[in-house]
Amino acid sequence: MQVEQIPNPLIKRALLTPDRTAIAFNKVQYSFKELYEHSHKTAGKLARHGVKKDLYTAVLLGNHMDTAVILLALQLIGARAVMINSRLTAEEIVWQLNDSRSAFLLAEERFQETIAAVKERISTVKVVTKEKLFQTPFTEPELITEVALDDVCSVMYTSGTTGAPKGVLQTYGNHWWSAVGSALNLGLREDDCWLCAVPLFHISGYSILMRSIFYGMKMVIHEHFNEKETIQDIREEKVTIMSVVTAMLARILDELKDDKLPETFRCMLLGGGPAPLPVLETCVSKQIPVYQTYGMTETASQIVTLSPEYSVKKLGSAGKPLFPASIKIIAGNGTEAEPYQSGEIVVKGPNVAKGYLNYDKNYGRSEGGWFHTGDIGYLDEEGFLFVQDRRSDLIISGGENIYPAEVEGVLLSHPHVKDAGVIGVEDGKWGQIPVAFIVKKANVNEQEIIDFAKCRLAKYKVPKKIYFIRELPRNASKKLVRRKLREMIGKDEDLPSALK
Amino acid sequence: MQVEQIPNPLIKRALLTPDRTAIAFNKVQYSFKELYEHSHKTAGKLARHGVKKDLYTAVLLGNHMDTAVILLALQLIGARAVMINSRLTAEEIVWQLNDSRSAFLLAEERFQETIAAVKERISTVKVVTKEKLFQTPFTEPELITEVALDDVCSVMYTSGTTGAPKGVLQTYGNHWWSAVGSALNLGLREDDCWLCAVPLFHISGYSILMRSIFYGMKMVIHEHFNEKETIQDIREEKVTIMSVVTAMLARILDELKDDKLPETFRCMLLGGGPAPLPVLETCVSKQIPVYQTYGMTETASQIVTLSPEYSVKKLGSAGKPLFPASIKIIAGNGTEAEPYQSGEIVVKGPNVAKGYLNYDKNYGRSEGGWFHTGDIGYLDEEGFLFVQDRRSDLIISGGENIYPAEVEGVLLSHPHVKDAGVIGVEDGKWGQIPVAFIVKKANVNEQEIIDFAKCRLAKYKVPKKIYFIRELPRNASKKLVRRKLREMIGKDEDLPSALK
Repeated sequence: MQVEQIPNPLIKRALLTPDRTAIAFNKVQYSFKELYEHSHKTAGKLARHGVKKDLYTAVLLGNHMDTAVILLALQLIGARAVMINSRLTAEEIVWQLNDSRSAFLLAEERFQETIAAVKERISTVKVVTKEKLFQTPFTEPELITEVALDDVCSVMYTSGTTGAPKGVLQTYGNHWWSAVGSALNLGLREDDCWLCAVPLFHISGYSILMRSIFYGMKMVIHEHFNEKETIQDIREEKVTIMSVVTAMLARILDELKDDKLPETFRCMLLGGGPAPLPVLETCVSKQIPVYQTYGMTETASQIVTLSPEYSVKKLGSAGKPLFPASIKIIAGNGTEAEPYQSGEIVVKGPNVAKGYLNYDKNYGRSEGGWFHTGDIGYLDEEGFLFVQDRRSDLIISGGENIYPAEVEGVLLSHPHVKDAGVIGVEDGKWGQIPVAFIVKKANVNEQEIIDFAKCRLAKYKVPKKIYFIRELPRNASKKLVRRKLREMIGKDEDLPSALK
Repeated sequence: MQVEQIPNPLIKRALLTPDRTAIAFNKVQYSFKELYEHSHKTAGKLARHGVKKDLYTAVLLGNHMDTAVILLALQLIGARAVMINSRLTAEEIVWQLNDSRSAFLLAEERFQETIAAVKERISTVKVVTKEKLFQTPFTEPELITEVALDDVCSVMYTSGTTGAPKGVLQTYGNHWWSAVGSALNLGLREDDCWLCAVPLFHISGYSILMRSIFYGMKMVIHEHFNEKETIQDIREEKVTIMSVVTAMLARILDELKDDKLPETFRCMLLGGGPAPLPVLETCVSKQIPVYQTYGMTETASQIVTLSPEYSVKKLGSAGKPLFPASIKIIAGNGTEAEPYQSGEIVVKGPNVAKGYLNYDKNYGRSEGGWFHTGDIGYLDEEGFLFVQDRRSDLIISGGENIYPAEVEGVLLSHPHVKDAGVIGVEDGKWGQIPVAFIVKKANVNEQEIIDFAKCRLAKYKVPKKIYFIRELPRNASKKLVRRKLREMIGKDEDLPSALK
């Protein structure tokens, strides 16, 4: 079978529906034709700087109309966007640029510290600020009129339990199949409009951009999530669908008070872990149709989604796998689990990423192409998925993934720390927040540890509380038993007196 | 790139939305769960007869709920359905069964003549009537839980200018991409319902069945097209979309008189050649949203479709290629045509069939995978396609394709015929009808020729009028110049006196 090709998404979309609204941002609207023209112009400027097909090009940009334009410009010339989380420290970003061998860094001027660090530490990366890019003269770029579904479109870093971030290779086909699977589930209306208040550098945001192009659908971009603006734009921009995590949804509900969203709003796509019962109940009472969903960077966004008709009957379930995808649960003994038996969630489908940058293509996969998520869950007798635990130790804080091993690595590099363990604890605002357990080697206090971590880790990863203990609970093979750390914390988030 | 797989469509759909209505036929409704149960039971009966994966299995069945069940049962066990046009003669069907090396013929008992001919003439084909099949005991079949997009799902015969029918190999991927391309164009609503009054053995009907499964959409099947029942079911079954050819649409408009279709009806998908202006104008006045479309067996249904917003502005255009597909026009000199320059329409996309049975996989294709349709047309400056002529000599009569060379071959086999030429002439009811020009070898009259053809050709292919002439117009290389035959016919459909 030959590798399937489709027309370059933006070129095709601009041909099909040039006059439809593509993107709205801060009251500025671009039609698909205008979006194409701006992206084409930007592609020419990128080409002038030497950006070209297959080059890894790091992108450090906030949510903005310009960001959509730059990402689509990269697609027009076939360059691969390495999506940098703007909340990372300069140190973390330098690591990802090195790992991806990025040839360019496209960044807003405001990320001065990172830009300086990159310039100083990686001579092979050419830094082009957005401001400078837009002033660059235009050179006619070589447009990629057809993309192979197997071509890498974007790279996003995630960490595993080992703590080493890995670049997930997302192809055009991954994005395509993800968008199609979602459309077959949610339907597709001419008046659809998707609000993106999640970061474009995350798959949750990037996938909205891709759907906008594939569907010919208006997308509203917000720079940051704000519940007031969200409600306002759902009304004024006639938003029909929005992607949220629980913390965002809770703030929207608080802000709404006794109000309702307009009837045209038809889908609140809720990711980032199972939602608490009271939140779902409030949504039911306010007639907000919540679609709970399960997905990850490696599945190019949602892979399992629950329709609202089941949101009460199957409370807590993430739903069923989208049409092109499959899931199964592997029990401890390696066989497929029975209904209600817990095990590792493994997934399969053409939306599952091609692999990890610099890793063997079968890494994380077993026979038949099944991808092992590391998450724990079970299926009921009707095939509804219940996710019980994300990657055993993954902490999800305000929609951001935190990998304890990565934080522990930083804490252990402090000269006065002998041993460190990190877990997530429940938090009303963020869902979870990271806390650390430290065994001291020499004298050090909580603030010193936190300040040390702040210089090396994105703010959301920095432990919000430090517990000093005598020894970490480890099993026979010296593996940290995080469950025991969790047991040490009472409901008041204080250590039991025996451990204080 | 590994060959992509998706879950078996019906199994997946029955898992996702078991309780939604799948098919309505003569007031009987099956949910997807019921459709699965019936198809599974039938798969077991087919297995008992020895039908299994990859076997070519001819299907000679009229439009019926049972037909949908049998076609889906074949998909459950991975057998390949060779779709037989029930209007063909026994002779034509025997030819297709031989060509496809079909191991089985599944037929309704009413097709006695064909069944007798097949039993007599092809010992390798096992004939199983539908009536007998349904009485067969059940054997647990080996279900194909995942289908490779590259696997052949159905085979449909078309003829080329050479007159030899060729079996078009339609894969699961072709059907999938076609359905997805259509959904991205037309949108997809929870309350969608597609009326199938076109034959299931044609791609126009089979593709509706596939969309029903992929979308989770209700499909209404009519045994035959009838304008009264059509209008009635659009109202009662809440049909939103219907596939038609011009002749059907004209009859619906006549029947409607001053009435209108309900507002929920949102798409009349009009294939089978450009529609006459008065028909389109009547649709505009009755607010019937007509989507003109261009497609063929080799593109697994529509590949170019015109949105209603352009139906007046771009009158006569077939529209733009669906998202995954591309078209271009090749001018006489072999280069890509300029806007408004006529040439051969060549198409590309993952919905374009894998190839022809028993032909080289590149047959009919040029470099880059472009498929040469043989049809003539041009693009305007905005990329809208205008089809000027189907395969130079193709006759489309009531939605059925007639290949003159095939009819000429039959006429030439008459002992008293020296030479024969066939063309289509316009007809108010059928769009076109075939007429023949005959050069006699010995004495024979019109009725004798027509009776001879009736035994050998499906009724719709039999010339409706025979003109006897002294010599056929042929060019220097002795190729028949059909254009000159057309010139011989006046508006009264009689020969100019000079030729009588």
